[in-house]
Amino acid sequence: MNRILILGAGRSATSLINYLLSAAEENDWHVTVGDYALQLAEEKVKNSERGNAIAFNVREEQERIKVISEADVVISMLPASFHPTVAETCLNLGKHLLTASYVSDDMRALNEQAKAKGLLFLNECGLDPGIDHMSAMKVIDKVRSKGLELRAFESFTGGLLMPNPNDDNPWEYGFTWNPRNVVLAGQGTVKFIQEGKFKFIPYHKLFRRTEMIHIPGHGYFEGYANRDSLMYMDVYNLHNIQTLFRGTLRRPGYCKGWDVFVQLGATDDTYQMDGVNQMTHRQFINSFLSYNPNDSVELKLAHYLGLELDGPEMHKLRWLDMFEETPVGLQKGTPAQILEHILKKKWTIGPDEKDQIVMWHLFDYVENGKTKRIRSAMVANGENANETAMAKTVGFPLGVATKLLLQGKIEARGVVIPITPEFYEPILNELDELGFHFIEEEVDLD
Amino acid sequence: MNRILILGAGRSATSLINYLLSAAEENDWHVTVGDYALQLAEEKVKNSERGNAIAFNVREEQERIKVISEADVVISMLPASFHPTVAETCLNLGKHLLTASYVSDDMRALNEQAKAKGLLFLNECGLDPGIDHMSAMKVIDKVRSKGLELRAFESFTGGLLMPNPNDDNPWEYGFTWNPRNVVLAGQGTVKFIQEGKFKFIPYHKLFRRTEMIHIPGHGYFEGYANRDSLMYMDVYNLHNIQTLFRGTLRRPGYCKGWDVFVQLGATDDTYQMDGVNQMTHRQFINSFLSYNPNDSVELKLAHYLGLELDGPEMHKLRWLDMFEETPVGLQKGTPAQILEHILKKKWTIGPDEKDQIVMWHLFDYVENGKTKRIRSAMVANGENANETAMAKTVGFPLGVATKLLLQGKIEARGVVIPITPEFYEPILNELDELGFHFIEEEVDLD
Repeated sequence: MNRILILGAGRSATSLINYLLSAAEENDWHVTVGDYALQLAEEKVKNSERGNAIAFNVREEQERIKVISEADVVISMLPASFHPTVAETCLNLGKHLLTASYVSDDMRALNEQAKAKGLLFLNECGLDPGIDHMSAMKVIDKVRSKGLELRAFESFTGGLLMPNPNDDNPWEYGFTWNPRNVVLAGQGTVKFIQEGKFKFIPYHKLFRRTEMIHIPGHGYFEGYANRDSLMYMDVYNLHNIQTLFRGTLRRPGYCKGWDVFVQLGATDDTYQMDGVNQMTHRQFINSFLSYNPNDSVELKLAHYLGLELDGPEMHKLRWLDMFEETPVGLQKGTPAQILEHILKKKWTIGPDEKDQIVMWHLFDYVENGKTKRIRSAMVANGENANETAMAKTVGFPLGVATKLLLQGKIEARGVVIPITPEFYEPILNELDELGFHFIEEEVDLD
Repeated sequence: MNRILILGAGRSATSLINYLLSAAEENDWHVTVGDYALQLAEEKVKNSERGNAIAFNVREEQERIKVISEADVVISMLPASFHPTVAETCLNLGKHLLTASYVSDDMRALNEQAKAKGLLFLNECGLDPGIDHMSAMKVIDKVRSKGLELRAFESFTGGLLMPNPNDDNPWEYGFTWNPRNVVLAGQGTVKFIQEGKFKFIPYHKLFRRTEMIHIPGHGYFEGYANRDSLMYMDVYNLHNIQTLFRGTLRRPGYCKGWDVFVQLGATDDTYQMDGVNQMTHRQFINSFLSYNPNDSVELKLAHYLGLELDGPEMHKLRWLDMFEETPVGLQKGTPAQILEHILKKKWTIGPDEKDQIVMWHLFDYVENGKTKRIRSAMVANGENANETAMAKTVGFPLGVATKLLLQGKIEARGVVIPITPEFYEPILNELDELGFHFIEEEVDLD
């Protein structure tokens, strides 16, 4: 019997836990779920005969060693900052480790030691990073197998809400993932390459330099650039590529609305505001506007940012109650913390709302002197507030990878990400069976 | 005989060294000037019988101890980061220390020890900080002496060029001070208080939220806000003030021109650009613009930022050769470093050009139910590229303070700044005799 240990039983672990428990009998596994909150782990394991729930505090070294020593493979769904601690213990005890997080420098440093001990430390095996890698490398390898090279690669992912005609939310957006990350998204400088030219976008222009993307059957989406696309030249070995661009998808109109907060400085996380304990939503907005007792906050804002008073951006802010004298309800905070707190009042998704994951790739290559373009898209819908599309698309790749590893079908060892066929072929195939289809179309551009 | 040690013989030390050497005979002083570059120190001391030049490396502890032990008072004109090192040695050897730099946390921590040893560690005694403190506190104390309180205080300083009708530079600006600080000016978040409301301006809006200031006899200036005006509530003890705003002066039109660089992201100092060794001025600008092979860089820029193709901002950029295919001439660099390098090609002031310092304060207070306003302004002109207005206004306050200290006229000890009458009265009086006049006018607002 193989013993699987899942650390962290939060929302993003739900589908992973369900997947492994439902395959446990057939594969002769036992699944232990550990969380700081024992009750959360118990709710996820339910009354499964193949699973058990434990209280687990990653900071307690003795506890960590004891729990991990009893496992064959560890899946960490903890916040990424804890992964190096877990990885050190796994290394010492000779246990495989899987995560859905980006490879940190601390993690990368363990590569040789993990290899030497015959251990797989698989990272970036969730949705983004994860399914994006796998679905992109599948096409990239197909082009390469013809002896051809990519000219352009663009890739966008979005964690959205399923369209709901009964919902009046003009953003068509809600928090389906860590709200803090949504508020801080895009801070720093964006780097990409377009037609052989390096391009840079500062944060304060990011949400105005969007790209419109059409996905047949699903309509239009707006994409804004992710921070550093250039690093994918190394990751995917695309050193001669002319265009390389990765981004995030939103519904059309979101970015111009969000840009209001960016322009105001309301997403700044670098300083504490003054007078927060007495502040209302309206005063929060007003603190970024000039003093003028004769004009309303609405008029000052519209004039400052060149918005129409009855236009879609002002409507989006009104819907969020941004102009109301509603107390913020915090004692202190940075602008970003205050904005997050206000947004949560309206952007928290209810038990009936369903989320939606949208992923879209574009690949250009030249064959026989003609430029060809492949588009590949996947749209996944959540079932409810627990079995979200986000939880499923993060959890299933990890679950399948764990199964493949325990079945002896993975040869890679060391600190790796799932960009080779032994990962992406079986994982994408099983995702397809589970209903996560990539629809590919190929067109001639010339 | 008193022995004065001046550390650092750069351009900003010229007037200080001349002032102290010319008063040395009368006061029985000897002035030692130490610089890492001996020749620089020798050029400044010339053949004065009351001075000598030495090579001095602040990083060499033995050398530092030996040189400082021979002095009675030390004036550090070194980069501010070296002040704590110098201050530690002064503390151990029982020497007074004067600087024109902001009090750092490291410096502030020495307050009690300096006091206990009867030492004066005077900081912020140059122009800004320095003359701004003194000229402001003189008026603030005058209002307070009537039992009244300030309602509003605004203060602006600018290091500019003297108007020159023969110069075609449309910026009416050149580097009269550290170019890097000019390029990075304003980064971070601006905080101030206006009519009792806390206000915040993000960096990307700073150069569009300017104030126009008129100084009789000198015309109009544009002011943009300095980073943290709120800290002056503590420094000047203005806790009930309704408006507190500090800023920087430029000639009209400068800020809209500079804002082009800010909007592009060309002042960003947080990342290394790619392809710098092959980059031209034009490509530098283009790297912040969308790819579009059918449009010129000029048109793309004008459209992106809403500029007129034949308007003043585009003219300012053309004058800087920003659209030329001139090689940048660096191997690597951040956007800010590359911009600084390009700007130096045109903004370096020639031997005949004269700089100008402009300082302006506004004070409002209520007396007998009527709001009264005092405006106070000083304009100082440089003589040439060495005896600049900047060097004089930084150096003379330090020189006078040193004289007062050695004449036994300063009672303050510990880490202090010149905000009390024993500093500002004699220093402002002597500055007035040296030609640096503050013109005050008072008007009734009601």
